[in-house]
Amino acid sequence: MKHTPYSLLRARLFAFWALLFLSLPVAAQKKAAITRIDPTFWWVGMKNQNLQLLVYGPEAGTYAYSISYPGVQLVQAHKTENPNYAFLDLTIAADTKPGTFTIQGQKGNQKLTRKYELKARSQEPKGQGVTSADLIYLVLPDRFANGDPKNDRFKDMADPNADRNNPFLRHGGDLKGIQNNLPYLEELGVTALWLNPIIENDQPLTDEGGQMRSAYHGYAFTDHYQVDRRLGGNEAYLKLIRAAHAKGMKVVQDAVYNHVGINHWFIKDLPSKDWIHQFPSYTNTSHKFQPIIDPHAAQADWSVMIKGWFVPHMPDLNHHNPFLANYLIQHALWTVEHFGVDAWRIDTYMYNDDAFMNRCNQALLDEYPNLHIFGESWVNNVVAQARFTRNNINFPFKSNQPGTIDFVLWTAMNDALNQKFGWDEGVSRVHQVLAQDAVYQDPMKLVTFLDNHDMNRFFSVIGEDLDKYKMGMTWLFTTRGIPSVYYGTEILMKNFKDPSDAEVRRDFPGGFAGDKENKFTAAGRNERENEAFNFVKKLAHYRKNTPALHSGKLMQFVPQEGTYVYFRYDDQKTIMVATNSTDKEVDLKMDRFSERSQGFTKGLNIQDQKTISLQPTLKIPAKTALVLELQK
Amino acid sequence: MKHTPYSLLRARLFAFWALLFLSLPVAAQKKAAITRIDPTFWWVGMKNQNLQLLVYGPEAGTYAYSISYPGVQLVQAHKTENPNYAFLDLTIAADTKPGTFTIQGQKGNQKLTRKYELKARSQEPKGQGVTSADLIYLVLPDRFANGDPKNDRFKDMADPNADRNNPFLRHGGDLKGIQNNLPYLEELGVTALWLNPIIENDQPLTDEGGQMRSAYHGYAFTDHYQVDRRLGGNEAYLKLIRAAHAKGMKVVQDAVYNHVGINHWFIKDLPSKDWIHQFPSYTNTSHKFQPIIDPHAAQADWSVMIKGWFVPHMPDLNHHNPFLANYLIQHALWTVEHFGVDAWRIDTYMYNDDAFMNRCNQALLDEYPNLHIFGESWVNNVVAQARFTRNNINFPFKSNQPGTIDFVLWTAMNDALNQKFGWDEGVSRVHQVLAQDAVYQDPMKLVTFLDNHDMNRFFSVIGEDLDKYKMGMTWLFTTRGIPSVYYGTEILMKNFKDPSDAEVRRDFPGGFAGDKENKFTAAGRNERENEAFNFVKKLAHYRKNTPALHSGKLMQFVPQEGTYVYFRYDDQKTIMVATNSTDKEVDLKMDRFSERSQGFTKGLNIQDQKTISLQPTLKIPAKTALVLELQK
Repeated sequence: MKHTPYSLLRARLFAFWALLFLSLPVAAQKKAAITRIDPTFWWVGMKNQNLQLLVYGPEAGTYAYSISYPGVQLVQAHKTENPNYAFLDLTIAADTKPGTFTIQGQKGNQKLTRKYELKARSQEPKGQGVTSADLIYLVLPDRFANGDPKNDRFKDMADPNADRNNPFLRHGGDLKGIQNNLPYLEELGVTALWLNPIIENDQPLTDEGGQMRSAYHGYAFTDHYQVDRRLGGNEAYLKLIRAAHAKGMKVVQDAVYNHVGINHWFIKDLPSKDWIHQFPSYTNTSHKFQPIIDPHAAQADWSVMIKGWFVPHMPDLNHHNPFLANYLIQHALWTVEHFGVDAWRIDTYMYNDDAFMNRCNQALLDEYPNLHIFGESWVNNVVAQARFTRNNINFPFKSNQPGTIDFVLWTAMNDALNQKFGWDEGVSRVHQVLAQDAVYQDPMKLVTFLDNHDMNRFFSVIGEDLDKYKMGMTWLFTTRGIPSVYYGTEILMKNFKDPSDAEVRRDFPGGFAGDKENKFTAAGRNERENEAFNFVKKLAHYRKNTPALHSGKLMQFVPQEGTYVYFRYDDQKTIMVATNSTDKEVDLKMDRFSERSQGFTKGLNIQDQKTISLQPTLKIPAKTALVLELQK
Repeated sequence: MKHTPYSLLRARLFAFWALLFLSLPVAAQKKAAITRIDPTFWWVGMKNQNLQLLVYGPEAGTYAYSISYPGVQLVQAHKTENPNYAFLDLTIAADTKPGTFTIQGQKGNQKLTRKYELKARSQEPKGQGVTSADLIYLVLPDRFANGDPKNDRFKDMADPNADRNNPFLRHGGDLKGIQNNLPYLEELGVTALWLNPIIENDQPLTDEGGQMRSAYHGYAFTDHYQVDRRLGGNEAYLKLIRAAHAKGMKVVQDAVYNHVGINHWFIKDLPSKDWIHQFPSYTNTSHKFQPIIDPHAAQADWSVMIKGWFVPHMPDLNHHNPFLANYLIQHALWTVEHFGVDAWRIDTYMYNDDAFMNRCNQALLDEYPNLHIFGESWVNNVVAQARFTRNNINFPFKSNQPGTIDFVLWTAMNDALNQKFGWDEGVSRVHQVLAQDAVYQDPMKLVTFLDNHDMNRFFSVIGEDLDKYKMGMTWLFTTRGIPSVYYGTEILMKNFKDPSDAEVRRDFPGGFAGDKENKFTAAGRNERENEAFNFVKKLAHYRKNTPALHSGKLMQFVPQEGTYVYFRYDDQKTIMVATNSTDKEVDLKMDRFSERSQGFTKGLNIQDQKTISLQPTLKIPAKTALVLELQK
């Protein structure tokens, strides 16, 4: 989720804001009932034996509850200011058997009942984590491939306007479409699939600066426990993950704790006023993260950053409400357990409450110790970036997040390709950013990237220069961290200057019925696209089979005259990555690198499989980053 | 000391390099003698009771030494590979009386003797420190004022070419000239005087890229125990410091540990080959500091940064030589004790050995707990800057330096004045740099500045815009840290684009006989210069008398639309600094600042002494930073 300049946000329609205050107990007139319980089901045998059920329905909060099931104890029931909610604290003893029990509510002579299931935990893979051995591929599900045209639109949903000709509306891509193309990803060398959010976004179109937009991006949840039916629903997600796992591919879920869609069922009937951050009049977040890290910050600035809303149609959740906090944490656990998710990407990480995030991360890690968690913290400096992951700085608040998305390196890699080399410019930027890695507890856990769904496409940013493209991709795949590729970057997808979000989220050609080109196949790609695809593919497969590029150490040398050399090495292999960012061939003297190159006389170029001499110099063509496996 | 691009350094003459290897025992032919002992004298009653004497003279190292004086014990005598040196380890018991003893050397029947004095410690002020209550004024002694024309040139020195018409030669400024102008500094509001190095630089002219240059800058020591005679020698320095102290003004000494001049007496007859860093051929430092902080760095890059030389005529000292390390540390102690220096500015801090610097800092702080120490670490990011002072980052090496010079804020303040306001540009730069202060143990101990002797003059950098000048000066004097002003900046001294060092070190007009203008006086300054001078003077005196600007907390608010507001406050006063960096007046809503402004209805503008209403808005003229003392 990217931040949008003030001016644009101010222009947006504030109509939905008013809705909130009109939405108090709408269910009051109906017959008392329990219409839903979240989590929708749970498991026996979880490490954490506590479970807090949200029980919802007309007058559901006015009943006294009881449960009778061996091993299950109803410890406490809570009410809120809205009579339609009850929160039931349960404990589930370690030896509890799977099964279904009845939750019974009583008020005088009146009774409410609803069944609740405790399942046995499956043996399916789950919470496997992604590591620096992986290559992540990010897909926006609506825009990749349409595997099931039957689910393109639903008349009972708030946005029935699927239209591939309108970049701001839904296009019909779905989970089945992704599943169908797993062989393509496998061919490319992808080992982990990250999808932009797949949870229901049953949102109406919104007028944003005169442009009607749909929530095809997925960041405006309306029911946490329902995968969007237009993507195929819960069943399709489960199938996709099982299919990915069968290929040894992991799945990363995109989580959003900060906000939900204005059409979320619980927003329409708020459990309590403090369920969301409310202000006397609509208040946007400042998007200015500095007050979170600044020892000199004003509380007012911190507050508007954390509590302000992204847009009027996405209410900002208040993690200080204990029931909401439990709700979100349990949903995270439920998702990993039910679908078998392997890693957790957290949207707008900085905007969430710190203590809540730590609690949530810890709950996931307690249950799934290998799960990787990496949030989006779009910052412009290493100190701030470190603040939102496990770090080596004695900040007053210590984050327990294992990873983070490396926006600082992203900026540096783009600068490296677009700036002329200088003391602090060009490839010096990459060197200087990595030189600050002492701030992180484990920089290998950072997720690196060249572009994503919120920014200009990489190939456009570098002026559609294939040499620069190859240099950037080479760094991404060989430096420290967990590389991620945005869908289509491998086939040179591009966008125009000053784009809308929609422009950088175009359909993958070949994923939709009637597409004239099918770039999932070599035959459908033009020569340049194949050159790019094959370059990335070769890098990805070499990387996949080379542990030195996963867990090997990094040693980087100070850039000189536009060259930048680093090594990845372990006991088995030494890989030299030698960049010449200038537009002339260079003849690089090797003696400076003897700490790592001593004992080696030649290098195998992993792209053309030719062996090059290292003695006494290494020739590097203009605008080239060579990946050489050193040989004696 | 600033770094110079590679290309220029390479062009420099390497002739002096060869000299070193020609310079082995020149004294061997002479009659055995002790010609000097360093430290030249010492004191009884120092906290550290150890003293290591360097005993020098022809064959002095071939003698066995004894000392007979109550309380003084010769613990051990050391030899080096050069027979002209002996190093004597003494202990001086706490109850030792001041006096003079004889150091006696014996070799067979031959004897050498030399007197050595242990003085009583004076009661003069010393090691008082500078704090955020101070205003530092930096003077290049050769370029400020010539108080004693008799010391302008000495025929027995290697550089007799004083010539005010040549910017690269000596101009004759001296310590007496500075002393004569203490009333000017006092009028301005200066509370601490920092002089570029005053130690003897008996260096020949050097040919640097075809330009003959003198060591008028002072960074090429040739005798640690001798203040340069052209500046007035040790006596003049002592007098200046006493005069400054008498006015309540402190003195900061500029220390250089990294290198000395090629003409240093001990370079001409090296105690041992490892006294300096030597290479098979001349090797310049890379000036690339990243390998010091980089967990991925190559040893080779670290080594060339630390061990490489600045220029061929300044040999790089090897702090791993224990005798050299002691020599430098004892000289630092001697200097503070003898002259009464209050603070210690360390040149090229990053280029020194880490462990040596910590040891040296600690030795000074053990003896003078209030002494402030702040080094020059010219870096471009906060992580690196923090590495060289007491910080909150768990670097493998922990610096104990109390302060550092804030180059990162310097860049940001200049950007703030020269960039159009933006998300990360203009005044946002200052806000964002200060927002990273969590990396420092005490950001209040950083020395802040707008320009110095190594960079373009501030008034030139901002396009000679007096409005920008006032904004920058206002920030410097009111934000956190210890402000420092480079001589002449208060009278709008400027330089031309792409200057030589000499161009930014022009003579202060009025300091030299025959000057047509005397800008030490209001009458000698033109209207604009008086406007600047009086602006700074008002700021300085207000600051001097306002503890909230010394030790008060800082609270800064996120800049909006080109405005940037912060407060300094303590129990007594609240100062609001409100900047409008745009070119239109703004009418600033005050409600956002209520955390600090609540209870106040107006502000006293410290420049024009007028009271301005804060309710409900504050009018700020274009390009203005108001300093308002808030009132109820």
